[in-house]
Amino acid sequence: MYLPEEDRKLIEVCYTPAQFELYKESFDIVVVVDVLRATSAMTTAMHFGVEKIIPVATIEEAKEYQAQGFIVGAERDGAVVEGFDFGNSPYVYIERDMQGKTVVMTTTNGTKAIHLASTANTVVIGCLNNLQVLCDWLIKQHKNTLVLASGWKDKVNLEDTICGGAIAKILINSGKFIAKEDSTVAAKFLFESAEQNLWKFLRASSHRKRLAHLKIQKDVIYCLKLNTVPCIPILKDGALVKLNE
Amino acid sequence: MYLPEEDRKLIEVCYTPAQFELYKESFDIVVVVDVLRATSAMTTAMHFGVEKIIPVATIEEAKEYQAQGFIVGAERDGAVVEGFDFGNSPYVYIERDMQGKTVVMTTTNGTKAIHLASTANTVVIGCLNNLQVLCDWLIKQHKNTLVLASGWKDKVNLEDTICGGAIAKILINSGKFIAKEDSTVAAKFLFESAEQNLWKFLRASSHRKRLAHLKIQKDVIYCLKLNTVPCIPILKDGALVKLNE
Repeated sequence: MYLPEEDRKLIEVCYTPAQFELYKESFDIVVVVDVLRATSAMTTAMHFGVEKIIPVATIEEAKEYQAQGFIVGAERDGAVVEGFDFGNSPYVYIERDMQGKTVVMTTTNGTKAIHLASTANTVVIGCLNNLQVLCDWLIKQHKNTLVLASGWKDKVNLEDTICGGAIAKILINSGKFIAKEDSTVAAKFLFESAEQNLWKFLRASSHRKRLAHLKIQKDVIYCLKLNTVPCIPILKDGALVKLNE
Repeated sequence: MYLPEEDRKLIEVCYTPAQFELYKESFDIVVVVDVLRATSAMTTAMHFGVEKIIPVATIEEAKEYQAQGFIVGAERDGAVVEGFDFGNSPYVYIERDMQGKTVVMTTTNGTKAIHLASTANTVVIGCLNNLQVLCDWLIKQHKNTLVLASGWKDKVNLEDTICGGAIAKILINSGKFIAKEDSTVAAKFLFESAEQNLWKFLRASSHRKRLAHLKIQKDVIYCLKLNTVPCIPILKDGALVKLNE
């Protein structure tokens, strides 16, 4: 059932943190997306029992937390940063027991995007793994919603744009949301082109090529799966916790 | 015949003037695109005999030229600016005889993008109307080429992205160019989705809706036609002239 146009809320997709300033004004909820791999890892971590994730923007902050005895993950340019024992692979949280722990995380793009988004009323974490459960929750909230794609060093990336398009498609199809920006329309078209075979579609992605030498194919396959992790991390007082309803 | 990868030149698409800074370094040729309607109008104007187009960024500059007796077109937000007798409709140059004239032009997005691009070695004007002739010339030059989409007020727009995708597709298919950015890969996918029916595809475009009240449907139909105007405007000493080979 479609609401009359004036009662629908906005769903838009912003392609990079650099463009966030142009979009942010009209939105109550910001969904931060970094499919490969930060937000997929965060969602997985929370689902497998991590209690809290503190996203930090710099390696320096990460080191300070490490010195205080925190468990810290640090990734730059796709690789684990020297001196840290894991990066942003979601498998870390499946293979190790981190039940009830607090984890500190810094990544090339994702954690920066979270910091940028933190001026919004509500910030949640999105990825392909939690797509449907996230969209169900967003539809229930029925507020103006912006997907902030983390991109790659302020440029567009394909996998985050497609994830934004997937969220937009589901929210628009609920009849309760509308998209007015071309960035959203284009993202939705891209998701529809990619939907049948994300892996094949993303063969062309620069990010995949960029990460090829890191042998993270297993991670990429994991991150491109839809609806495998029914969990939504939400930002509360500067840290991510599991959204409980 | 495909060249070995290391001999291919870059073809990339930058979605908005705001992102130009991130891309510009590696490129010899910048193609400025503003399909609806500035670059379509410029191409048409040159083809129908206008000798020179002086693109200016502000209304103030446009007024100064007007006071000096120049023919001046000025458009903001899709409409003709008060005090000027035309805006950026390509039909102006078909319907009026401007053979041998110099025209001054200012538009919401297109002329600003030209000014931004003017630091590049070579700046040419692209649109769907001159697609193939432009691509043939670009392939012959065989230099690193960036399409700068004018967008809409620093945000992405669908029609310029698609035009960028069309240029990228033709250059890549020549075997002499390669794309490494996801923005280019996505633009090419969008063009391939849209190719069969641009008009239908662009129904969803925010720009179309934005301009709907202006009754410029005739202009839009004109601007979305491929390969109707075999002419390439090129920037020389701050003004556009017809590229003669």
